[in-house]
Amino acid sequence: MQTLEEMGKKAVAAKYRVQKLTAQEKQKALLLAADGLLEDRERILLANAQDMEAGRQSGMRDGLLDRLRLDQERIGAMAEGLRQIAKLPDVLDRMLESWERPNGLKLKKVSVPLGVIGIIYESRPNVTSDAFALCFKAGNAVVLKGGSDALRSNMAVAASLRRSLKAAGAGEDALQLIEATDRETTAAFMRCSDWIDVLIPRGSAGLIRAAVENSTIPIIETGTGNCHIFIDETADLAKAVDIVVNAKTQRIGVCNACESLVIHKNIAERFLPKLKERLDQVHAVEIRGDENVRGILPEALCASPEDYGKEYLDYILSAVTVGSVEEAIAHINRYSTHHSEAIVTENKENAAKFTHEVDSACVYVNASTRFTDGFEFGFGGEIGISTQKLHARGPMGLRELTTYKYVIEGNGQIR
Amino acid sequence: MQTLEEMGKKAVAAKYRVQKLTAQEKQKALLLAADGLLEDRERILLANAQDMEAGRQSGMRDGLLDRLRLDQERIGAMAEGLRQIAKLPDVLDRMLESWERPNGLKLKKVSVPLGVIGIIYESRPNVTSDAFALCFKAGNAVVLKGGSDALRSNMAVAASLRRSLKAAGAGEDALQLIEATDRETTAAFMRCSDWIDVLIPRGSAGLIRAAVENSTIPIIETGTGNCHIFIDETADLAKAVDIVVNAKTQRIGVCNACESLVIHKNIAERFLPKLKERLDQVHAVEIRGDENVRGILPEALCASPEDYGKEYLDYILSAVTVGSVEEAIAHINRYSTHHSEAIVTENKENAAKFTHEVDSACVYVNASTRFTDGFEFGFGGEIGISTQKLHARGPMGLRELTTYKYVIEGNGQIR
Repeated sequence: MQTLEEMGKKAVAAKYRVQKLTAQEKQKALLLAADGLLEDRERILLANAQDMEAGRQSGMRDGLLDRLRLDQERIGAMAEGLRQIAKLPDVLDRMLESWERPNGLKLKKVSVPLGVIGIIYESRPNVTSDAFALCFKAGNAVVLKGGSDALRSNMAVAASLRRSLKAAGAGEDALQLIEATDRETTAAFMRCSDWIDVLIPRGSAGLIRAAVENSTIPIIETGTGNCHIFIDETADLAKAVDIVVNAKTQRIGVCNACESLVIHKNIAERFLPKLKERLDQVHAVEIRGDENVRGILPEALCASPEDYGKEYLDYILSAVTVGSVEEAIAHINRYSTHHSEAIVTENKENAAKFTHEVDSACVYVNASTRFTDGFEFGFGGEIGISTQKLHARGPMGLRELTTYKYVIEGNGQIR
Repeated sequence: MQTLEEMGKKAVAAKYRVQKLTAQEKQKALLLAADGLLEDRERILLANAQDMEAGRQSGMRDGLLDRLRLDQERIGAMAEGLRQIAKLPDVLDRMLESWERPNGLKLKKVSVPLGVIGIIYESRPNVTSDAFALCFKAGNAVVLKGGSDALRSNMAVAASLRRSLKAAGAGEDALQLIEATDRETTAAFMRCSDWIDVLIPRGSAGLIRAAVENSTIPIIETGTGNCHIFIDETADLAKAVDIVVNAKTQRIGVCNACESLVIHKNIAERFLPKLKERLDQVHAVEIRGDENVRGILPEALCASPEDYGKEYLDYILSAVTVGSVEEAIAHINRYSTHHSEAIVTENKENAAKFTHEVDSACVYVNASTRFTDGFEFGFGGEIGISTQKLHARGPMGLRELTTYKYVIEGNGQIR
C-alpha cells in the first residue's frame, strides 16, 4: 500500500496536469469514465457483494446496508451522473473582474482550480464517482478516503475511473483513493496541508467535528441543519401547512428538513390543529412544544431547551410560540445551525426583516427549506452544503470548487 | 478581567447590532472614532510611553521599538486611516447574482458580513485601529488580541474607539480587546468557534503556524512570501534590472519583496552583470546562486536547495538558471509560497503560459511583485494578504471581509 507521502507527490503532479486540460479534454474523460463504469459493472457488483456480505456478518443495520448496496440501476445512475457533470458549462478561466490602475497596470481576476481536494466520506460508494467528477470538472485533482465498510466497492469504482482517466490521456492520478482504513491514516490525512489545498469532510457530525478539531488543512464544514420555519401572524394557512408538511416529512434524514417550528401567538390556534390534521394523514410526527403549543395540542410533549437546538433527522418537530417577527429572528439566530430557515408570511416588511436579519446560508419566504440543494438551485450538482461562512455558503456546486488568481500586466512598473 | 465566554456573548450581541447599522451610521461612527483618537492622543501617548519604557528595560531591539512607538504624527495617520476607510463605498447588500427557477422560485445571492472576526497580531499598535475599521466597515464585530508588548497602547486605543462607538450609537462591543497576555488565553481564543466566524492571524510565521495547528475556527493564512521573478530569454534588460532592484531593495521586510531570481540561461550573461552593477549602487545584496550564476558572478555564494525555499526578508537573493519557461514554472511551483511571482519577457506566449500555469495568488508580467497590496490594487485598504486558496487569495480588502447568503422568494413551493 502507498504511503500518504507517495500519494501526495502524485497528487501534486496530477494537479498541474489537470490544470492544463482543456474543457473538451475533461468532458471527454468524464464521458469515457461513464462508459467505463458500465463496462466494469460486474467487477464493481462483485466487490460490492463482498462488502455487503461483510456488513451483514458484522450486524450492519438495514438502513446502512441499503446505503452501501449497488445494483445495475445504481451503477447506471452513477454513469448518468458522470455524463451530466461532463456536460455542465466549464467554470475555469472566467474573467471575474478586470480593471486598470492609474499607473497603467492592468489587473484581471480569473477563476482557477483549487488544486488538490481531499474528501473524507462515509458509507455510500456512489460518492466515489460523484465527488471525483465534480472536483475534476472544476480542474482539481482529488484524493478520496471512503468508509471502511465500502472499501472493496470504492476500490473497484476508483480502479474503473482511473482506467478511463488514463485512456483519456488525463492521467490516472487525478483520482486517488486511500485504501488504509485505520484511524491513524485518517488523522494523518487531515494534516497533509503541504499538498492538499482544501479538505471536505462529508458525513456524520462526529466526522466533521474530528476534522474541525484536527485538520491543519483549510476545511469546508458541511451538513448539520437545524432548519426553522416561522409561521408569521399573516401567514396563508394553506401554504403554511403545505410547506411545513413537505419540509418535515418528505425526507426526514436530510440536512434541509425542517426540525423546528416558530409560530406567531396570534395564529397558533388556527394553524396548529390544521397542521396536526394534515400530518396525521401523512405520517405520525411527535411535536415537542412550549406551554402555548401544548395548550392547543394536548398530545404535544414538553420541549426542553435542548430540543430547540436539535437536528432530529426523525419524525419529531419542536415548536415554540413568539410574539413578533423580532422574537422569531432572535430565537432562530440563537438555536440555528445557520443552514436554511423560512418565513411564511403575507407581510412584505416582515419578510424583508426576516431575510435581512436571519444569519443563515439560505433564507426562504413562502417556500420549503427542502430546496437547499445544488440541483434545486440549478447548479447541476453539489459536493455538499456549507454551513460555514468562509469561501462558500449553502449548496456548493462547480464554481465553489474553484478559487481565483490575479493576473497583472505591466510594462515595467515599479514602486 | 472578562472571561472569553463573557466576551463571546457580547460579541454575538454586537454582531447582530452592527449588521443592522446603515452605511451612513457606520461611516458616522468611523469619522467620530477618528476625531476621538485625536482628542485622546495624550492618554494614548502616555500609555505608549509606558510600553516603550518596559520594552527598553527588557532589551527590545531598536527595530521592534520603532514598530511599537506612537507619536503625534502616527496617531494622526491612524485617524486619517479611519477617515479613509469611512469614505470607502459600502460593500454590503450587494446583489451578487439573481435568477429564477422553472418552479417560480426567485433566488438572490446577497453580500452580508462574516459576523464576528477574531484577529491576533503582534507589536504594532496602529493595527488596533486599522483592523477594527476595516472589519467594522464591512459590518462585522471584531475581537482583537494584540501583542503583550503593546498592551497598554492597545488598551488606550481600544478604549478611545469604544467611547466613539458608544457615542455614535453603534454599541461599544463592536470592538473588544483581549487584555490577558498569557499563552493559555491565546490558545483558548483560537478554539472559540462557537462565536467567532473567522480568525485572521497577522504576524510571524510562528504565530500563523500555531493558528493552523490549533485553531478550530476557520482561519485565513496571511503573509509568507517567497516571491520569484523569472527573467525570460526575451526580457527587456532595462525593465528586468529596474523590476528586480525595486522588488528586492525598495523594502526588504515585506512579504511581497522578491526573494528568488529565476533566469533563462541564454540571457544570464548579459543580465546578471547589469543587475549586479545597479544593485551595488543601491545597496549591497548577497546573491546565492547555482553553478551558472557563480560562473558569471564570481562573488556569488553557493545556493543550497533550502535557499530556494526561503523568505529572507533581508538583502539576500537566491538565483537559479533554467533552460525554458516550463522549467521556470516548475521551479517556482515547487519552491514558492504561492504569494506573488513575476515574469519579465517580451514573448506573449511565454507570458500567457506563465500566468496560466504558475500557481500563485498574484502573477505579474513585466511589473514588480511589490504591487501585491490592497492600496496598490485599489481596494482602499487591506487586512492582509492571503496565501491560502479558500475564500480569498492575495490582498484582502473590504469585500473579502464579507460572505453571502441566498434569499429565496416563493409563493408556496414545495418539493
